[in-house]
Amino acid sequence: MTAPNRNVLWARTVVDELADAGVDAVCITPGSRSTPLTEAFDRHDDVHVFSHLDERSSAFFALGRARRTGDVTPLVCTSGTAVANFHPAVIEASQSRVPMLLLTADRPPELRDSGANQTIDQAKLFGDSVRWYKDVAEPEATPRKLRSLRTTAARGLAKATGTPAGPVHLNFPFRKPLEPVEVAGDVPDDLPELAASGRDGAFVRTTAGVPELDDDTLREVAERLSKPRGLVVAGPADAPGVEREALAAFAHATGFPVLADPLSGVRFGGHVRVAPVVGGYDDFLDESVTASWPDPDVVFRFGASPTSKPLRKYLARVDAEQLVVDPAAGWREAEFTATDLVVADPSRLMGRLSRLLAGPGSPDWRRRWEDADATHESVVSDFATDADTAGFEGRILADVFELAPDPATVFVSNSMPVRDADRFAAPTTKNLTVLGNRGASGIDGITSTALGAGSATTDDLTLVTGDIAYYHDMNGLLAIGRSDVDATVVVVNNDGGGIFHMLPIERFDPPFTAQFKTPHGLDFEPSADLYGLSFARVAGDDRDGFREAYETATKEDGSHVIEVVTDAEESHRLRDEIRARIVGELTE
Amino acid sequence: MTAPNRNVLWARTVVDELADAGVDAVCITPGSRSTPLTEAFDRHDDVHVFSHLDERSSAFFALGRARRTGDVTPLVCTSGTAVANFHPAVIEASQSRVPMLLLTADRPPELRDSGANQTIDQAKLFGDSVRWYKDVAEPEATPRKLRSLRTTAARGLAKATGTPAGPVHLNFPFRKPLEPVEVAGDVPDDLPELAASGRDGAFVRTTAGVPELDDDTLREVAERLSKPRGLVVAGPADAPGVEREALAAFAHATGFPVLADPLSGVRFGGHVRVAPVVGGYDDFLDESVTASWPDPDVVFRFGASPTSKPLRKYLARVDAEQLVVDPAAGWREAEFTATDLVVADPSRLMGRLSRLLAGPGSPDWRRRWEDADATHESVVSDFATDADTAGFEGRILADVFELAPDPATVFVSNSMPVRDADRFAAPTTKNLTVLGNRGASGIDGITSTALGAGSATTDDLTLVTGDIAYYHDMNGLLAIGRSDVDATVVVVNNDGGGIFHMLPIERFDPPFTAQFKTPHGLDFEPSADLYGLSFARVAGDDRDGFREAYETATKEDGSHVIEVVTDAEESHRLRDEIRARIVGELTE
Repeated sequence: MTAPNRNVLWARTVVDELADAGVDAVCITPGSRSTPLTEAFDRHDDVHVFSHLDERSSAFFALGRARRTGDVTPLVCTSGTAVANFHPAVIEASQSRVPMLLLTADRPPELRDSGANQTIDQAKLFGDSVRWYKDVAEPEATPRKLRSLRTTAARGLAKATGTPAGPVHLNFPFRKPLEPVEVAGDVPDDLPELAASGRDGAFVRTTAGVPELDDDTLREVAERLSKPRGLVVAGPADAPGVEREALAAFAHATGFPVLADPLSGVRFGGHVRVAPVVGGYDDFLDESVTASWPDPDVVFRFGASPTSKPLRKYLARVDAEQLVVDPAAGWREAEFTATDLVVADPSRLMGRLSRLLAGPGSPDWRRRWEDADATHESVVSDFATDADTAGFEGRILADVFELAPDPATVFVSNSMPVRDADRFAAPTTKNLTVLGNRGASGIDGITSTALGAGSATTDDLTLVTGDIAYYHDMNGLLAIGRSDVDATVVVVNNDGGGIFHMLPIERFDPPFTAQFKTPHGLDFEPSADLYGLSFARVAGDDRDGFREAYETATKEDGSHVIEVVTDAEESHRLRDEIRARIVGELTE
Repeated sequence: MTAPNRNVLWARTVVDELADAGVDAVCITPGSRSTPLTEAFDRHDDVHVFSHLDERSSAFFALGRARRTGDVTPLVCTSGTAVANFHPAVIEASQSRVPMLLLTADRPPELRDSGANQTIDQAKLFGDSVRWYKDVAEPEATPRKLRSLRTTAARGLAKATGTPAGPVHLNFPFRKPLEPVEVAGDVPDDLPELAASGRDGAFVRTTAGVPELDDDTLREVAERLSKPRGLVVAGPADAPGVEREALAAFAHATGFPVLADPLSGVRFGGHVRVAPVVGGYDDFLDESVTASWPDPDVVFRFGASPTSKPLRKYLARVDAEQLVVDPAAGWREAEFTATDLVVADPSRLMGRLSRLLAGPGSPDWRRRWEDADATHESVVSDFATDADTAGFEGRILADVFELAPDPATVFVSNSMPVRDADRFAAPTTKNLTVLGNRGASGIDGITSTALGAGSATTDDLTLVTGDIAYYHDMNGLLAIGRSDVDATVVVVNNDGGGIFHMLPIERFDPPFTAQFKTPHGLDFEPSADLYGLSFARVAGDDRDGFREAYETATKEDGSHVIEVVTDAEESHRLRDEIRARIVGELTE
């Protein structure tokens, strides 16, 4: 490798290493200080550049790609507050264990804290949210420094994709000139080949194992699972999720029902044919229902804490052994009901356990769950197909999951969409990849994360979001045109924070309407005009109208925004009615 | 004070103290964990609530208010990534010394790092960017704790408005219930009056002095300033800026020319009648011009590092004593040309010095600067009024500053608008408050900061921004309707990052167009539709058209967006021509 000056050589070396290690895309926002990195990525044939203008959206876009694939899409930005705009996505990546690699440009040391323009303290800006921070050395074309740089690139990737995966922040000081202008004597002609060009392939190959139990311990765990009343609880998945085959084998070997969070990666897919996947627990795990049920003997949990509060409360009130499996020893279990922390990779563990277990699960126990789920599905279907009761927001989710193409990526926003998906998206054999930002559960960056996920595969992409989350990341829509992602964006617009109707604050108005519900009165059609998207508006109780609009959107080329105008209060009333009907039928 | 439960008592106590200390407004974004704080602010008669939906915009709005007035507008948000969205504005507030008070809600300690929903590590999230961080105690209705809370509120305000002013972060853990529901026994009836209701007025009154030199040292400084060739350099001001009267007295007492940054607070105003304020230095401080000038003997500097690079370079190449006055000993001087750091309040220092100085300044020296400035103004005027050359973006700034109502707040974005204001906005006696975010010089949050500044007074508000900055904070426009701020928003739209044409990277394409210029092709009219704003589009070389649109916008009620479509390349060519003409005339 040769270069007109040390900065360019430095940046090209990093990009070379990243590409050799498999990085095939990068998200870049424009800026001057980052010129060497931008130039190096732009000229590399094997790296696709996604160009964004808002760093906050850029970071969530990169997060979405990595969440979908498990692979890193590095981020480049210039110095200053640009870096701080990454912070929300960094926290989400950290908490939901999604690999991320932040390459931020900085002023050289002598200009820091000097009053120089666009210079902030970028060192450890993200605190404990990153797996690794490094202030990269100042560029210099010496063999030792170049080897250290190549190693740093490899190490950054290894840390970002380690256990747990997460963000890594490499901060690059650059001194002018930043452009590929010739600087005589800056890059010696006689650099050793290894420093100048690296190896054929990655400079340091990373081969990483995953936590695995020894055989004796494995047998002990198998013994503890050899009980008639077992449950598998699959929480939101770390990227890229557990293997559906392993879960299928494990469910088959145990005979235990699988309570699968919509974000677990195992509620949908071909494995549902063999694994008894249950989806309606949020509705039927009412105390009045389970009071007459025997407690489970043992609960086998993996993934993050489940979205469903009734499920979490159920797990807290039953007297059962609870094994929380987490390869990163993360203790993600805020009801403190775990009896065992099992530090192991869940897919491998389930695969190995399934060879030791001989179907301990009681058919009656399983049937109890399957029957409750069937009751749930039938009541929901009654409500959804009756014109008088079809206006609950969850019906939109049920429709989307029923009609989504196969395969598809379905991204659900936080606040109500993920909860409605949890309640109303019945398990199917369709190959759906359902994603959400459940690490910190923010409503920021939702659109960008979804579009990033959509950009990573050829699957159809549907995003279901609320009006506040849609507003919050409206800038993210720019990626549809700039990054050539096709999406169907379903905006459940109840004019404000509908979720607050679920909380006791609803009874106190003021401040309820002005400070919680916060109606904004926005008509989102111009947002579609701004970004050149098709737009349709459908009434919340118009089931046929929505289904038609959704099917049209997924079949037509281009991106579509479907605004579904709902009434949050009415929706909550109907949600309560549905739950009451289900509970009623199950306690008869 | 009484309250239905400890959380409500706790929050009302904080709000009570803040209001007693003079806080009269707050920026709130909706969320559940912050319910006690939101409820307490909402019910307080003396505090106006600005309700925002995007925390990033909310924080910049609060920054803008404080930048305009010097007073704190606290910020409230819920737990999770909401807090991280404050980060860009926190950094800007820290670096430009604007008071800010962040009141963030958090989970109680037992739920942190437990896998609980919407729970992140908020402790010291903003690192060294805050003047003070405190994890507030868990709410409890005991006299000692309530007194500590009242003291914490007072202390937070004192730190935020201290020297230097800046952000303070108080993190409030709340355990359910969060709403004003009655919890029996939670708040005793017999709380001592002082703990329950505080004092009549603030619980702790803060009386803060400013750094002042003793008389002997003052005389020494006066002696060092007693030279014929002196210069006053006023950089971007800390909030709320230096006193124009003090500057006028000082300029009169010294006879020194005043090179006033557009953000210094002293380029515009009645004091210009007596102080020789110079504005065209960015154009005429060319090396070929100043080569034949004698060096200054002494330079008296205050404020942050000047926006103008030619001015900074001039100060770096002259052989002069340079006194940098900074009450916070901030060393904001990245050319390292200071010979003296004077830790003192600049307004008070100038006031006292002006009583000791007997007009040491040489009239010839002053005339040299005034003549150069007159040449600059005449050349700019020639270009601006000639239809063939009126299409440079700086003309838009010149027009705005000429036509802005008196008084007015004019907010200029980073990137080109502030630089064009520096070059093309001639000093006038109009009472203009010119603001920008020059602490970290980001292009994020510009619209929100401007609207926040506009919300703080009855002055007319004009924002001049570029298309990338406008896009970046489009969410900020929501405040126009929600917070009832009237604004004239001038968007200089050159379809991308025009500033990059000024940099050497322009010669390298690729990557110039795709990764630096980043044309987006957005037509911004729908953004005005979305937020219900009037919209006009004017060609960049249509001077009369722009002046008419601008005058209409400032006279009519309601908010207006004026998109001025310019050509960045042509603009830079004309900027270069203007500079060359000025330099030519001055070196003839």
